[in-house]
Amino acid sequence: MSENMQSPVIAVDLGGTKIVTALIFENGDILDREHILTQASEGPEAVIKRMLGTIDLLLERQNMKASDLKGICVAAASPVDMKKGIVSTPPHLPGWYAVPLRDIVRDRYGIDTYLINDVKAAVLGEYRFGAGKGIDNLICITLGTGIGGGIITNGKLYFGEVGGAGEVGHMTIDANGPRCVCGNTGCWELFVSGTAMEREVVRHLSSGEASSLAEINRKNGIVTSVDITRAARNGDVLAIRVIAGSARYLGIGLVNLVNIFNPGMIIIGGGLSKIGDILMEPAIQVVKDKAFRVLSGAVQIVPSSLGDDAAVLGGAAFVWVGGRV
Amino acid sequence: MSENMQSPVIAVDLGGTKIVTALIFENGDILDREHILTQASEGPEAVIKRMLGTIDLLLERQNMKASDLKGICVAAASPVDMKKGIVSTPPHLPGWYAVPLRDIVRDRYGIDTYLINDVKAAVLGEYRFGAGKGIDNLICITLGTGIGGGIITNGKLYFGEVGGAGEVGHMTIDANGPRCVCGNTGCWELFVSGTAMEREVVRHLSSGEASSLAEINRKNGIVTSVDITRAARNGDVLAIRVIAGSARYLGIGLVNLVNIFNPGMIIIGGGLSKIGDILMEPAIQVVKDKAFRVLSGAVQIVPSSLGDDAAVLGGAAFVWVGGRV
Repeated sequence: MSENMQSPVIAVDLGGTKIVTALIFENGDILDREHILTQASEGPEAVIKRMLGTIDLLLERQNMKASDLKGICVAAASPVDMKKGIVSTPPHLPGWYAVPLRDIVRDRYGIDTYLINDVKAAVLGEYRFGAGKGIDNLICITLGTGIGGGIITNGKLYFGEVGGAGEVGHMTIDANGPRCVCGNTGCWELFVSGTAMEREVVRHLSSGEASSLAEINRKNGIVTSVDITRAARNGDVLAIRVIAGSARYLGIGLVNLVNIFNPGMIIIGGGLSKIGDILMEPAIQVVKDKAFRVLSGAVQIVPSSLGDDAAVLGGAAFVWVGGRV
Repeated sequence: MSENMQSPVIAVDLGGTKIVTALIFENGDILDREHILTQASEGPEAVIKRMLGTIDLLLERQNMKASDLKGICVAAASPVDMKKGIVSTPPHLPGWYAVPLRDIVRDRYGIDTYLINDVKAAVLGEYRFGAGKGIDNLICITLGTGIGGGIITNGKLYFGEVGGAGEVGHMTIDANGPRCVCGNTGCWELFVSGTAMEREVVRHLSSGEASSLAEINRKNGIVTSVDITRAARNGDVLAIRVIAGSARYLGIGLVNLVNIFNPGMIIIGGGLSKIGDILMEPAIQVVKDKAFRVLSGAVQIVPSSLGDDAAVLGGAAFVWVGGRV
């Protein structure tokens, strides 16, 4: 329990799969935390109700009123219109179009409320409380269904002209590559996301390749990145090869970020980062081999130290600076 | 002639081909200017002597002493160690290794002296005096022998961790592409520089393709981007096709910058930008087709309005802010 006398904040990480809601003190201590499934298929109304329920629950459990809080921040897995407080078109939240989520939350609790993109919140969390503390040129990428990016330049969160900076997953790394749902071709995330790895495995299985994953695919009708990681750790050759392929492409995109940004650190989070060293080490080797030496020598590439708490901690930090970062 | 009473500065743009030296007032008025060829093959000592000669000449011509200046800035076509004031390894200045150019200039004139990379100076020039005025998220690229990049984020010049940010020419856009001299593969500048266009033309000519450029190649033993541009304007099919190919790749790299940075403007300078609309328009169309719509809608992609003066104007601006940008 924290001794910090400053009013705490509540920060919500609203993702396509799960919602994390936390009550946080200014020193980064998390007083209480609630995880629930988003159940995104039920649509925005149900999801928002469920999300507000987690805020109510934390307040009740800690015997607090909303007015005891410094503010609330929602970090959403979506492009965000910061000025209007609108969740615009979240790819993994079906049925959401221009939902004025900031005002919905503000109207209910009557306190300062902020809305921010989840990966931007994550990089801010890592900068304030995590591995990136004091690193003024910092990039955070999240490897999940796709690849998201959060960027800090000169010690400040970088939003770009309309708040849309950081779509690093949609840089072309193969000009002759396949088309992406975004409309671009050969995007980085086509080669290195969970989806990409699962697709690669299924492709090899259907051409009759032997693998312990064949049985899982038959039984579950799907192979997840968790299955692939487990199989690779158990020595499955196909799983190892697919992860190695992803690692090479992960490295290629990291080289681009290193050459463009000359960052002091790149932090890698998201579900797929849990694969660990068998993904990370070969990717880091690509950076050492291919980026400018003076730049690869200046960057640390590390896994997230905050894990699932990065976005709520960054969301909390965003409240304390009054949304001015 | 300016009425500005603030002491002027002298700024030098030290390139692989030419040296531009200018005497500049704080409002951006250029009082006097000197262009000479670098003659880089003669090595650092001769080039530095020639460069200092242009500074002496401007002072003499304007009847000024060095102490009448606010300071001097050299913008060099090289990676620069800002702290030590060293020109490290300029690819187009043969024989230069870790030359302490800042101190050489400072020791001679005894006034505040700064050293900065030329493309970083150019983006600063465009931000203070050119098309990018007031655009706080601004990228300047120079298309020449390679592709250089200068970046302003949140209204500040972005150097990165060791001053090396902006190597946009060395982002991989074709993971299976050819090897670059930098050690990476499929770099942007391999597909869109003057060198790339010239190589493409020669390749087609040697396979016997008909073109007005065949005669030029036979006569001069070389085809330059100026020749290619002229031929394209005269309707030469090969020249038009090579420029169209470069334009496509130019567009692909611009899409990456737009998706990553969400800039308000990208300014395109450098010798190759003089090709004009037949290069720029199809590249801009690629951005419209492939970048996120909200981001492509937020960016203006324009030719440099300062042309060859961008780097000296930015160098001058760098002196007025005391090297703190």
